[in-house]
Amino acid sequence: MKVSIIGSGNVATHLAKALYYAQVEITSIWSHQFENAELLANQVGAKSIKQISEITDDGSDIILISVKDDAIVEVATQLKNYRGVVAHTSGAAGLDVLNGNAHYGVFYPLQTFSKHTALDFSQVPLCLEANDTQSLQQLKMLATLISKNIYEVDSAQRKILHLSAVFACNFPNYLYGVAQQLLAQHQLDFDIIKPLIAETANKVQTALPIEVQTGPAVRNDEQTLKKHEDLLKEHTDWLMIYKLLSEQIKKTR
Amino acid sequence: MKVSIIGSGNVATHLAKALYYAQVEITSIWSHQFENAELLANQVGAKSIKQISEITDDGSDIILISVKDDAIVEVATQLKNYRGVVAHTSGAAGLDVLNGNAHYGVFYPLQTFSKHTALDFSQVPLCLEANDTQSLQQLKMLATLISKNIYEVDSAQRKILHLSAVFACNFPNYLYGVAQQLLAQHQLDFDIIKPLIAETANKVQTALPIEVQTGPAVRNDEQTLKKHEDLLKEHTDWLMIYKLLSEQIKKTR
Repeated sequence: MKVSIIGSGNVATHLAKALYYAQVEITSIWSHQFENAELLANQVGAKSIKQISEITDDGSDIILISVKDDAIVEVATQLKNYRGVVAHTSGAAGLDVLNGNAHYGVFYPLQTFSKHTALDFSQVPLCLEANDTQSLQQLKMLATLISKNIYEVDSAQRKILHLSAVFACNFPNYLYGVAQQLLAQHQLDFDIIKPLIAETANKVQTALPIEVQTGPAVRNDEQTLKKHEDLLKEHTDWLMIYKLLSEQIKKTR
Repeated sequence: MKVSIIGSGNVATHLAKALYYAQVEITSIWSHQFENAELLANQVGAKSIKQISEITDDGSDIILISVKDDAIVEVATQLKNYRGVVAHTSGAAGLDVLNGNAHYGVFYPLQTFSKHTALDFSQVPLCLEANDTQSLQQLKMLATLISKNIYEVDSAQRKILHLSAVFACNFPNYLYGVAQQLLAQHQLDFDIIKPLIAETANKVQTALPIEVQTGPAVRNDEQTLKKHEDLLKEHTDWLMIYKLLSEQIKKTR
């Protein structure tokens, strides 16, 4: 199986490397910035190309489009004559944004990728969808080579997944940042709280979050809530977050 | 070294077991509910007692008070004649709530404990404070037997730590719960998002949260933010959270 990749961002980079390590041949890589395509292509034994249209005849079975959501359609338009499967990797874009192509699908890795953080791709959930059975089969075959967690998810469900990921990843990460800054402002090392962060994520691997909720809000411990609000009185933004989330947690009691 | 424990909740239970496994002799356990004291005492080879005052002469070197914050003073008052070190395990209560005693301190484990979740206590940060050098030394000796992460933290700093823990643990756990409920409402399994939760916590073990922030808000991706808000229009509480946290994340750009 041969794959070409459009894009060179976090998702494109992690996908390209995972495919390369799985000995999938990566044919071409295109990026808005040619230098970035070159950089990634060199790491995965691929050819960097200047024109998207060059992919059409490069012999690849699947093209993965991993660009910003609002650039997907423009890229896909340039692949009208391609006969393989065109798939985007977005959580928020529908399947239908590719409906100008013959065979198309979605190859969405539900994970948070940072360029310089290595991760075990075999654990990354891959959410697949396609416009016909054969294309879905092809995407599944490819997915199986790099991950053990493969899901068939339609566009409506995928949008919910993407939204859930914001609550499960982007927001918690922001809140870790608040904790880190609070500690730094009081000469406390962020290290001290890292085991807590790890254990909080670990607990919900085997329990429902609502069953393992701890803290002053779920105990309705008004005294501690009040003390915390006092400590935050110079940080009006964080105070707003503290109050809103505590109120919500109280409602789950 | 001999230790007695007042309390039988999550923190008391995990502490008692960690001490027991470290072959520390646990002398007496008292709980508001005698049956709970009995239950825990049976697991750690201790004696369950009905009157707190019985501890005074039980030969223990340290008493750990692990009860609700507003019950600490009441318990400590009954230990006035005790000559060993009395320490509470609270993040929010000051050292001075114990100042009716001769030797006193704080033995605060900065972790989230659920009764039925086992965890590696050797990684739990223990934050210590005491009213005199010898008491601090005693608490340190005890701490060293069960954990590798020992910190000296004064009461003002500990309050900040406790507040940070709400941001780093209680709030993220609540948000995991929102994600889980969103998924369930659309026939999606919570399992699908668990690797994302694990990786989000994993990334900040080696990077600052602000450096690894991902998602539509930090990209200022207005189209996706709008789509997500539309998906949440029937969940006004979650929509409020989504908007507030997204606005805050935008400010970190």
